[in-house]
Amino acid sequence: MILYEEFEEIFKIIKTKAPLVHHITNYVTANDSANAVLALGGSPVMADDEKEVEEMVSLASALVLNIGTLSQQKMKSFLLAGKKANAREIPVILDPVGLGATKLRRDFIAEILTEVRPSVIRGNMSEIANLYGNPALTKGVDSLLSSEDGGDEIASTLAKRLHCTVAITGKVDVISNGEVTYHIESGHEHLSKITGTGCMSSSIIALCCASGRSPMHGTLLGLSIMGISGEIAKSRLRQHEGQGLGSYKVHLFDAFSQFTLRNYLERGKLYEIQSS
Amino acid sequence: MILYEEFEEIFKIIKTKAPLVHHITNYVTANDSANAVLALGGSPVMADDEKEVEEMVSLASALVLNIGTLSQQKMKSFLLAGKKANAREIPVILDPVGLGATKLRRDFIAEILTEVRPSVIRGNMSEIANLYGNPALTKGVDSLLSSEDGGDEIASTLAKRLHCTVAITGKVDVISNGEVTYHIESGHEHLSKITGTGCMSSSIIALCCASGRSPMHGTLLGLSIMGISGEIAKSRLRQHEGQGLGSYKVHLFDAFSQFTLRNYLERGKLYEIQSS
Amino acid sequence: MILYEEFEEIFKIIKTKAPLVHHITNYVTANDSANAVLALGGSPVMADDEKEVEEMVSLASALVLNIGTLSQQKMKSFLLAGKKANAREIPVILDPVGLGATKLRRDFIAEILTEVRPSVIRGNMSEIANLYGNPALTKGVDSLLSSEDGGDEIASTLAKRLHCTVAITGKVDVISNGEVTYHIESGHEHLSKITGTGCMSSSIIALCCASGRSPMHGTLLGLSIMGISGEIAKSRLRQHEGQGLGSYKVHLFDAFSQFTLRNYLERGKLYEIQSS
Repeated sequence: MILYEEFEEIFKIIKTKAPLVHHITNYVTANDSANAVLALGGSPVMADDEKEVEEMVSLASALVLNIGTLSQQKMKSFLLAGKKANAREIPVILDPVGLGATKLRRDFIAEILTEVRPSVIRGNMSEIANLYGNPALTKGVDSLLSSEDGGDEIASTLAKRLHCTVAITGKVDVISNGEVTYHIESGHEHLSKITGTGCMSSSIIALCCASGRSPMHGTLLGLSIMGISGEIAKSRLRQHEGQGLGSYKVHLFDAFSQFTLRNYLERGKLYEIQSS
Repeated sequence: MILYEEFEEIFKIIKTKAPLVHHITNYVTANDSANAVLALGGSPVMADDEKEVEEMVSLASALVLNIGTLSQQKMKSFLLAGKKANAREIPVILDPVGLGATKLRRDFIAEILTEVRPSVIRGNMSEIANLYGNPALTKGVDSLLSSEDGGDEIASTLAKRLHCTVAITGKVDVISNGEVTYHIESGHEHLSKITGTGCMSSSIIALCCASGRSPMHGTLLGLSIMGISGEIAKSRLRQHEGQGLGSYKVHLFDAFSQFTLRNYLERGKLYEIQSS
Repeated sequence: MILYEEFEEIFKIIKTKAPLVHHITNYVTANDSANAVLALGGSPVMADDEKEVEEMVSLASALVLNIGTLSQQKMKSFLLAGKKANAREIPVILDPVGLGATKLRRDFIAEILTEVRPSVIRGNMSEIANLYGNPALTKGVDSLLSSEDGGDEIASTLAKRLHCTVAITGKVDVISNGEVTYHIESGHEHLSKITGTGCMSSSIIALCCASGRSPMHGTLLGLSIMGISGEIAKSRLRQHEGQGLGSYKVHLFDAFSQFTLRNYLERGKLYEIQSS
């Protein structure tokens, strides 16, 4: 029940303070991330020019660094923003999109990790396995591995090595801070059939961490919100009326905007796996 | 009734000519702005390379300059496009997104206003108050002030100073050209809970101004369309079926695509406040 | 029935292999293109930095080059990616968005065609007529001509000249590889009232061509999927409930996600026009 009390506290802070979540992110899913944060009660801002990111970070309560549609012109902005967030001690959520796909991404994530200390790293199994040191097969920005393929060990080891919370999302989400590891079994496979659900997960985690509570709790609540909303969206899908993935996405945002901790009490599937 | 006759004229021109509205805008809400303009009968185009913006402006009937996701590489394009629009005497609608948040934005808007003469400036209260000279508190791209906080005086004074129409949008929209000031009390708070409604307002104003009628009338009609469509969207929200903000956005675009001046006659809340 | 057997083969490959479609595209419709490819069973990736596009192309089964929101910083990426795709013999789908509007676009498409050999070029009548050599009137990114204005001749001649499949989309789609010309009469005018349907058409063609079957067959199936889905979306529009273009777009993605060849058998309007 300690977890639940933490979630209540985070939820209350979001609803009363509408924390600002600064994003440096990609142009494919920026609209979805902004709407997810807004629907849950936060205040999103996207800004990525190197001349303004530090000032914007100074107004924010959390920072998302998402390297989808990475471009060299934006790289300095990631580093400046990340360092400023570290200096201000606000959480940095790193989303290493497509890490396995190209050298540019691998080198840049390595550079970020040299200069910036993230609070949370969230990716799919291929992305996190690459970060761990397994040059796992990647298909573009999608994973060819599932979180069951040794995810507990990878998340836990990487969390210890990088002194942060690591989240591997997939059919089962694996979350570890190096001391405790959790699984979240919420969600629905439709979430993998619309673009941006990974990015939105990172943004929602950032919103929860913007509360100032621990990154681990923020991540657990954020991924529970995502997974449970994905289940609710599925339950509302009127397939006999022909509803498919277009409607599913609409239902997903409906569910975000109506999410309460009652949804978590009724549907949460969060399990502690091991302590070390 | 003079207003209504103007609105009829603007509406007729949009529906018969489908005017081209050129946007230099941000990657978060560009899709929404394009769909809003299309749904209302216009033709949107987004183009921002400095080598082509003047030529694109030459084909257009209005220009939107929106500084969300501002980047230094795009700054020259804003200036070139704005000056070309002035030379061609087509309306320029300036949307100073997040003006209060960073020096980069403040300096750039000052530069735009030195080189380009906008027909309409639309922003939230924080943005317009900053332009007026009040370093109002801003949270990212959202306002911490409402239009009731001295909005009439600010809009009217700024309109006189900059020789343009100024619109402060919020719970009550304040619109002034320095001679007459109007309030629009249409809208619904859900509009502030989805991203892009400010940007869409600027795009719809641009579409109405693209008719060639006065910027003041274009702004009044544009913001009435936005507010009334926001109300209609709310009235169609089937909350007992679980509809929330995802569905609200869909209803909003439905309302745009079906908007007629009958909606204005039935629901318009446009009031003249003062003449000076 | 030979066509149908080809379509079955393409469809089977998509559903079993989920081919990766690499996009260099615009920020207005990137989200829509990604969701269209995902909904039909493919795997989209958007990446455009010159330091990584060749590596990303090496993972992909098709490449989309879409010049909407063209910027000079991205030009080299188009060329590098296109040449790599040619070297790997994977299909390149070229979408010359707004070609008629500016010199920058005309010059760049000419440069692409000097260095890259596309498998398919898809555009509206103004775009393709400009490519053919008719400086046709263009309104921004929209066409002022329909495909009936000499489309068969233009498509066929251009296909022969450029040794590729040429598709002119509009009320009637004209598709030619220089030897055979087809018309597709599927679709609904609502498709022209939401942004991104042209871009999505190119992405869906790319997905079908990613199967490795002939570009002509991939184009015919891709445009049939688009047109038929547009018809199904219209048939599901509950206008008595106030559904308009917002809902239409949702129904369109629903239809993509449920598309089967049974839809083609029941609704396909594909006609061979001439052999030469």
